[in-house]
Amino acid sequence: MSTPPRFAKLVVFGVGLIGGSFALALRAAGEVGEVVGFGRRLGSLTQALELGILDRAGFNVGQEVSNADLVLIATPVGTTPEVMARIVPCLGPQTVVTDAGSTKEDVVAAARAHFGQRLGQFVPAHPIAGAENSGALAARADLYRHKQVVLTPLAESDAASVARVRAAWECCGAQVRELSPAEHDRVFAAVSHLPHLLSFALVHELARRDNRDLLFAFAASGFRDFTRIAASHPEMWRDICLANRGALLDELARYQTQLDELRDALQCADGARLETTFAVARAARRAWAEGRTDA
Amino acid sequence: MSTPPRFAKLVVFGVGLIGGSFALALRAAGEVGEVVGFGRRLGSLTQALELGILDRAGFNVGQEVSNADLVLIATPVGTTPEVMARIVPCLGPQTVVTDAGSTKEDVVAAARAHFGQRLGQFVPAHPIAGAENSGALAARADLYRHKQVVLTPLAESDAASVARVRAAWECCGAQVRELSPAEHDRVFAAVSHLPHLLSFALVHELARRDNRDLLFAFAASGFRDFTRIAASHPEMWRDICLANRGALLDELARYQTQLDELRDALQCADGARLETTFAVARAARRAWAEGRTDA
Repeated sequence: MSTPPRFAKLVVFGVGLIGGSFALALRAAGEVGEVVGFGRRLGSLTQALELGILDRAGFNVGQEVSNADLVLIATPVGTTPEVMARIVPCLGPQTVVTDAGSTKEDVVAAARAHFGQRLGQFVPAHPIAGAENSGALAARADLYRHKQVVLTPLAESDAASVARVRAAWECCGAQVRELSPAEHDRVFAAVSHLPHLLSFALVHELARRDNRDLLFAFAASGFRDFTRIAASHPEMWRDICLANRGALLDELARYQTQLDELRDALQCADGARLETTFAVARAARRAWAEGRTDA
Repeated sequence: MSTPPRFAKLVVFGVGLIGGSFALALRAAGEVGEVVGFGRRLGSLTQALELGILDRAGFNVGQEVSNADLVLIATPVGTTPEVMARIVPCLGPQTVVTDAGSTKEDVVAAARAHFGQRLGQFVPAHPIAGAENSGALAARADLYRHKQVVLTPLAESDAASVARVRAAWECCGAQVRELSPAEHDRVFAAVSHLPHLLSFALVHELARRDNRDLLFAFAASGFRDFTRIAASHPEMWRDICLANRGALLDELARYQTQLDELRDALQCADGARLETTFAVARAARRAWAEGRTDA
C-alpha cells in the first residue's frame, strides 16, 4: 500500500554528479517513478544506465518532456539557454522545470528569453554541494543530505511550481532557502567564486615559475587546503566567472584593496595591524566553523 | 642490552605542539635520556610534565644547558634572539642547538649576533608540520613522521653538529632536506606564508561587511578548505610575516600582478584566457597531489 511517487517522470539534462545524484536521491526516497536522461556524451549516458541512475536514455526531447512532471537542467551553465530553447516548446502544462546552476542572474535572463508565457513553470535553483569529482560515476544518493539548496524564484514563478521544486530538493535531504537572483549572485561571488579565482591564481602563478618543482616539493598541508579548489573544472569555472562577471569583479576589487592594505602594513612592518587583521579573521573563521558540523 | 640513547639530555625551550612533539618522538624512539623544559607559562610546563613530555621543568638555564647534548628552541619566532642570548654563554662544548622556526634568515641573523665563536654549534631547522591546534596538549609522538624537515646549515656549522641535528629529526620519523636560509625563505614565502596571508585577507574582508552573517550562512566546502589556515595563530603569523617581509612582499607583488591579469580577462570577458589559467592551475595541482599521500 505504498503511496505513489511524488514525481511520476523526471527528465534530467546532464547526467553527471549533480543530475545523477538528484535522480539517485529521489529514487532512494521513493519519490520518482521513471528517470529519463539526456547528455552530450554517449559514454556518460551508458554509465548512468549501468549505475541505475536512469531508466532510459532519451532520444526525442519533445516526446520525453511533454509528459514529464519535473525537468532538471544540470548541464554546464553555458549550455543552459540552448537546453531551454529545446524544451520550452514541448513542455506539458504540468511540467515544472528547475536547474542547478552556480549562478542565477544569467539563468533568469535566459529563462526570460526562452520561457515566454511558460515562465511560471520555471524555478531556478542552486544546490550547494560541489565535489572535486565529477561525472555520473561520482553521483551519490546522499550528496544533498544536510546541504543547502538556494531557490531564486521569479515574481512570475507559480507558487505551485516553487512548492514542487522545494519538495523535490527536500526529498533529497537538502535544506532549502530562498534568495533573489541578484542577492544569490553577490553572496556566491564572495564566498565561492572569488575563493576559486584566488586559488586558481596562486597555483597558476607558481606553476609558471622556473623553480616550480622546488616550490611544490615543499608545499604542505596549508597549501593543500588552500589550493584544493584549484583542481576544479576549468570549463565549469570559466562559465561561472563569465556568468557572474559583474559581482565577481566587485568582489575582486574589494579583495585587491584588502591586499593593498596588507601590503602597506608589511611595508611599514606594522605588526600590530597585521596581528589585528589576522585575529579578526581567525575569530570569524572559528565562529563560522563552530556553527557547522564539517568545518 | 639496549644501546644508550643518542641524546642523554635534551633541553626544550617552548613546550607546545612543536617542542612537545619533538620530545615525545625522541622518547618514543628511545633516543633521549632526560628531557628538561623551559616555557613562558607555568600552566604549559605543568601540563607537559603531566603528559610525560618532560622529566623536569627547568629553573636555571645555565645549569641545564651546560651539560645538555641537544637544545631545541621552539618558542614563538619573535623570542628566538632572547633565548639565544640566554643560552649561549652557558653552552657546553658538546651542546648542539637547533630551532624550529618557520623563517630562517632572521634566525640565522640572530645566531650570528649571539653565538659568536660557538656559531658552529647551531644548526637552523624548520619542521614542516603545522597543525591547527597548538599547545602541549596537541603534542604527538608521530607529528613528524613522514613530514619534511628543512635544515639550513651555515658555512660555519660544524659538520658533526649538522649530522646530530639531522639524526635527531630522522629519529622523529622525518625526511630531512637542506636549503640555504635565503632559498628556504623564498620557497616558504611562496607556498606557505603567502597562502596564509591570502586566506586571512579573504576572511577579514568578509568579516567587516554588514551582511557578513548572510555571506557566512552560504559558505560551503570550498570556503572551508580555502580558509582553514585563516584560523591560524595571529601572533605566530604576525612574527612570520615580519621575519620574512622581503620575500613575502615579493610574492605578494607577483600575486597582485596575477590578479590584475585575471581582472583584465574578466573585464574583457576573455573566457579562453580564464579557462587556460584554470586548466594550467588544475593540472599543476593534480600533479602535485599525485605525488603525495595526503592531498
